[in-house]
Amino acid sequence: MEKPQSEVVLYGTWASAYCTRVQLALKLKGIAYEYVEEDLTNKSESLLHYNPVHKKVPVLVHKGKPIAESLVILEYIDDCWNNSPNVLPLDPYQRAKVRFWANFYDQKIIPSSYAVVLSKGKEQENAIKEFNELLTVLEEGIEKDFSTKFPFNGERETLGFLDIVVGAHACNYRALEEAVAVVVEPKEHPAFLSWVTKLKEYPLMNETLPPHDKLAARMRERFSLASKRNIATL
Amino acid sequence: MEKPQSEVVLYGTWASAYCTRVQLALKLKGIAYEYVEEDLTNKSESLLHYNPVHKKVPVLVHKGKPIAESLVILEYIDDCWNNSPNVLPLDPYQRAKVRFWANFYDQKIIPSSYAVVLSKGKEQENAIKEFNELLTVLEEGIEKDFSTKFPFNGERETLGFLDIVVGAHACNYRALEEAVAVVVEPKEHPAFLSWVTKLKEYPLMNETLPPHDKLAARMRERFSLASKRNIATL
Repeated sequence: MEKPQSEVVLYGTWASAYCTRVQLALKLKGIAYEYVEEDLTNKSESLLHYNPVHKKVPVLVHKGKPIAESLVILEYIDDCWNNSPNVLPLDPYQRAKVRFWANFYDQKIIPSSYAVVLSKGKEQENAIKEFNELLTVLEEGIEKDFSTKFPFNGERETLGFLDIVVGAHACNYRALEEAVAVVVEPKEHPAFLSWVTKLKEYPLMNETLPPHDKLAARMRERFSLASKRNIATL
Repeated sequence: MEKPQSEVVLYGTWASAYCTRVQLALKLKGIAYEYVEEDLTNKSESLLHYNPVHKKVPVLVHKGKPIAESLVILEYIDDCWNNSPNVLPLDPYQRAKVRFWANFYDQKIIPSSYAVVLSKGKEQENAIKEFNELLTVLEEGIEKDFSTKFPFNGERETLGFLDIVVGAHACNYRALEEAVAVVVEPKEHPAFLSWVTKLKEYPLMNETLPPHDKLAARMRERFSLASKRNIATL
C-alpha cells in the first residue's frame, strides 16, 4: 500500500464509534484529511508503528506525528486548530463538566452496553437494569449541568464535544437493537432519546455515521446471534 | 460541622493519591484553598451533595460549583487559573502526549498495582509480571515522547501534569512495598525509579505526600496483611 502523504491522516475502521468521533471533529472544523481504513483482523504495519501501546484505531497522524485515543485526539484537534468553531466550550467550568460526562460515558455506559449484549437470561436482565440506571444518571446529570436543548452545550447550534462523544456511539443503538433484540425503552429516557434522535437528524452526523443496515449486519455477526431474542421489558 | 466559606474548597482524604494530585496543582499555582478531610467510612452530606455520581474524593468546589475526578480537576485548574506556571505544556502535541500517558497510568498501571496487592501465589506472580510489563511500556513511551530529564515535560524545572499524576501515586510505592512486601525492582526500571526518587525529593512533593509510616500502616490494615511475604523475584 502506498504511504499516505497528506498532512492529516486518520487510521480508522468504519464500524468504530471512536473513529466516527474523530471524523466528526475534523469535518466540523473543516480540516482536510486522508482516511485509511484498517482491517482489525489484519492490522497494518503503519497502525502498529503509530500506536504500539494499544494497537487500536483511531490514530490521527498530523505532520507525521501520531496521537491515539479518541478523547485525547478530540482535545488535540481543539488545541491545535483553535480557530472557531471549538468543539469544547470555552468556559473552564463548562469544559470540566463536558470532560466529566464524556469520561462517564466511556468508562461506565459503553462497558455497560457491552455487558448487555454479551450476556443472556437473568444476567442480561441485570445488565439491562444497570445500563438503564446509568442512562438515568447521565440524563439527570446533563439536565442539571447544561441546558437540555439541542445541542445542549449551551453555546451554539452546532455539534459540541459531548454531542460528538455520545452521539457517535448512541446513534448506533438502533442497529444494536436490531442485531441483538435489546430495546432501549423511550419512555424511560425521554430526554436522552430525544437528544439522540435530533443528533441522528443532524446532517453532519447523518453523513458520518456508518450505514444502519451494514452496521446491524456487522453487529449481528460480531455477537454471533442469528436470530432476534425477545426481551419483554427493560 | 461548620460549612466551608472559602472560594476554593477541596474535599479529600489524606491517603488518596488522587487528592494529593489536586493539592499539588493548587499549591504549584499558588491558589489558596480550604481543605476538608473526609472520612470515607462515613461520607459527609457535602461530599454526597457535590459528587452524587461517584460519591468519591477528590471534589474541588470553586465559588460553590463542584468538579469531580482528579484529571478533570487538574485540567480545570489549568483552564481557570491560566496564569503561569501551567501544569499542562502549552504545545498541543505535548499536551496530547501528556494526556495519553496520564490515562495510561490511571487505566492500566493503577488497576494493575491493585491486582498485585490483592492477589496471592501464582496469581500474584502473574500480576507482578504484568505490572512490570506495563511499567516498561510507560518507561519506553515516555523516553520516546519526552526528554527523560527531570522534570521530563521538557519545558521547565518544576512539576508538570505527568509528574503530578504519576508522582502522587508512585511516590507511595515504598509504603506499599512495606505493607505487602512486593518489591519494585530498581534494576528493571531504572528510568522510572530515578524519576520517582527525584520527585520524592522535590520539596513541594515531599511536603504534600502522606507520611510514609502512617500510609504504610493504613495500607497494611487495608490489605489485611499482618506480616511480610517473601517474593524472590519480579
